[in-house]
Amino acid sequence: MSTIAKTPQAPYYSVIFTSLLNEDDTGYKEMSERMVVLASKQSGFLGIESARESVGITVSYWANLESIKKWKTQFEHQVAQTIGREKWYSTYKVRIAKVEKDYGF
Amino acid sequence: MSTIAKTPQAPYYSVIFTSLLNEDDTGYKEMSERMVVLASKQSGFLGIESARESVGITVSYWANLESIKKWKTQFEHQVAQTIGREKWYSTYKVRIAKVEKDYGF
Repeated sequence: MSTIAKTPQAPYYSVIFTSLLNEDDTGYKEMSERMVVLASKQSGFLGIESARESVGITVSYWANLESIKKWKTQFEHQVAQTIGREKWYSTYKVRIAKVEKDYGF
Repeated sequence: MSTIAKTPQAPYYSVIFTSLLNEDDTGYKEMSERMVVLASKQSGFLGIESARESVGITVSYWANLESIKKWKTQFEHQVAQTIGREKWYSTYKVRIAKVEKDYGF
């Protein structure tokens, strides 16, 4: 599903979300897919990349800090975050990082 | 293998490396494991997180831009990058991003 995000010229912002799931992750997959759909409709959204093995990494890209803040406080996303903390994640880390430079091939 | 990196207080730097592999990825896994070992010995290295599904995401964390630059030009790493471009990766993107803030639980 996930591929490499087509982001504009730097600078822009990234949210690096790393998580470990509990053994019982019932409902997690559906919710995370719903959140990708919802995030992609937010103002300032630029793209998202996601993969999970022992650790799950989701990197979303945003035009600026304001759009990240708005997404964090979006109602349905807040509900998902609460369930995540209470039920799905054994641990997680969120890192807000400004992309200063990018290149590829 | 990979888990959530124990990084120090922000600010610090991240390298978000996203890639898609070719069908024939012979030797890739061994090389990527070798690169993790090698990276972790570099000055300024703070941690690394990695997962691959349809897309591969590796995020490494560094004290500053100088340590990222040194790692990029490290000899054995340069050899790996060359083989990667010629053989393993159908496409990739490297993003250098300054972590301004982080939190978790």
